[in-house]
Amino acid sequence: MHKRGKQSFILPQMPVITTWASVAGKKESEGPLAHCFDVTSQDTYFGQKTWELAEQQMQKTALETLLQKAGLRKDQLGLVFSGDLLNQCISSSFTLRNAGIPHLGLYGACSTMAESLLLGSMAVGGGFSDRVVAMTSSHFAASERQYRFPLDYGGQRPPTAQWTVTGSGAALLCSAGKGPRIEGCTIGTVTDLGIPDANNMGAAMAPAAYATIRAHFEDFSTSADAFDQIITGDLGQVGKEMLLELARRDGISLGGKLTDCGTMVFDMDTQDVHAGGSGCGCSAITLCGYFLDKLHRGKLKRILFCGTGALLSPTSTQQGLPIPGVCHAVVIRGRED
Amino acid sequence: MHKRGKQSFILPQMPVITTWASVAGKKESEGPLAHCFDVTSQDTYFGQKTWELAEQQMQKTALETLLQKAGLRKDQLGLVFSGDLLNQCISSSFTLRNAGIPHLGLYGACSTMAESLLLGSMAVGGGFSDRVVAMTSSHFAASERQYRFPLDYGGQRPPTAQWTVTGSGAALLCSAGKGPRIEGCTIGTVTDLGIPDANNMGAAMAPAAYATIRAHFEDFSTSADAFDQIITGDLGQVGKEMLLELARRDGISLGGKLTDCGTMVFDMDTQDVHAGGSGCGCSAITLCGYFLDKLHRGKLKRILFCGTGALLSPTSTQQGLPIPGVCHAVVIRGRED
Repeated sequence: MHKRGKQSFILPQMPVITTWASVAGKKESEGPLAHCFDVTSQDTYFGQKTWELAEQQMQKTALETLLQKAGLRKDQLGLVFSGDLLNQCISSSFTLRNAGIPHLGLYGACSTMAESLLLGSMAVGGGFSDRVVAMTSSHFAASERQYRFPLDYGGQRPPTAQWTVTGSGAALLCSAGKGPRIEGCTIGTVTDLGIPDANNMGAAMAPAAYATIRAHFEDFSTSADAFDQIITGDLGQVGKEMLLELARRDGISLGGKLTDCGTMVFDMDTQDVHAGGSGCGCSAITLCGYFLDKLHRGKLKRILFCGTGALLSPTSTQQGLPIPGVCHAVVIRGRED
Repeated sequence: MHKRGKQSFILPQMPVITTWASVAGKKESEGPLAHCFDVTSQDTYFGQKTWELAEQQMQKTALETLLQKAGLRKDQLGLVFSGDLLNQCISSSFTLRNAGIPHLGLYGACSTMAESLLLGSMAVGGGFSDRVVAMTSSHFAASERQYRFPLDYGGQRPPTAQWTVTGSGAALLCSAGKGPRIEGCTIGTVTDLGIPDANNMGAAMAPAAYATIRAHFEDFSTSADAFDQIITGDLGQVGKEMLLELARRDGISLGGKLTDCGTMVFDMDTQDVHAGGSGCGCSAITLCGYFLDKLHRGKLKRILFCGTGALLSPTSTQQGLPIPGVCHAVVIRGRED
């Protein structure tokens, strides 16, 4: 039995992330991580007619880049776990249309990169599949018009609002090979402290992030000391501060190890993104563009990657419901030769 | 390694479906399976103010009924895999709000019952979790107003249209116990033959169902002879006939074993459902209301349960894209004492 504690499991045969790929949009390619991405585009439509098709094009490009880097053909992949923010996850489904690759669709909102890595680890670590891809995407303009307003409307954004990242990330998990390895995972619970403001996702997700980090520490009898960094997906500046405060109140130290992809992917001073980046693509391109490389080159030894998701829909918000959050955590170890 | 062939895996430690529960709406409780369901309601709102809240209430009731039948508390569950048709899968997320149960959200459209059983099998069979719930739901009125028109509009339905089932099903997978067991699974690929008609889902899903059944036969070197029944989720009458035709053209016999939950859940002659039932709830309540009981009582020995999903969204349809389908298959064996 590989179960640990109430919410976690270990991977005795650690799946190896042998290859990873990232695709980023214009604004992301002008930010602090510009040099990290495999593919960037100055055309936010990615050569397509609609924002939704642009997002599919990004995911296709991420998958193709991954295959190219790995030297594999599509038919050599065993399984893809993917999902996205668009209604009915069309970016993910249409990306794999007639590709002949077994596919299991996920919905974890912005936690999808972590959720897909977690399930990919189960599939590879349990011997149920080999060469599993974990993948996701988001697109600023497609998200804005679905969740809030079309861009043409020119809606004002409050200071707590975040900027959905235009990007896609993909990681290849194998049972053998060289690269960062997944050691264990903690599955999140749906946590809701009653935040109803769809322009303050960080606050809605922070309690879930805290619950999962605390559960991880308990399940593995560990602490922040065991990690070089604890990395949340897209809490942004507001959510990050709330997470620190929640931990402080319980006397749990995050030991100065906390960083958030939403505060890394854009320049918070100059890029006018208010509280920071968000969206499935936020943690995906930060992990697949920046962190996996650091782990691979030995610059980081062990991280806790915590994907955070706000489980709202425009309908639930319009019907007056609050915004539940979820957070899944994955322990990734650096390459050991 | 438990992988078999290109798309399948076996479960050397077969997860046992020890308990199952079903909740059904008014129309479903007037159909041929009326006597099979644990809970039925003559109030399509299930005591709530909106159709969306009604769907959450159904999932909550399915989970509570499952726990009651199993004699378990919420905190004794290891993990819930669930998803639904509503945008951002709010029925599933809100059902588990502050329940403290680890949750992994899925999007597989109407294939979700099979997808959640498949992933539950990996989690239990691989030793990553115990007491895993596979769960899903759909609601006719919530689906109609999201995918097509609000009911008040009185839109006409063509003969190929299907009727979304109002219902929720849940199954508990354990590493030990008595009940039907999951022997192996086949993961579907996203298959698209170019059907663009959102009122003909059966035709859109039939090619995916055929692809998965054929892959299952190939991966396990087996045939229809090995099963008492091959059960598709919600192809309806039109899709079922197309699946038979696709198999016939390739010289693959389904040996008179094919049945479809969409043609079972309603009386096709008297209930005015046109081509049959559909929705995540269709295969969920038919499996968790009817088939698992038959397997448990030894009336069926071995079935291939094939969840079918149409991966469209109103946006993809409005943008002129066709409707891809997916189908995941699970081999379930009857109880052996």
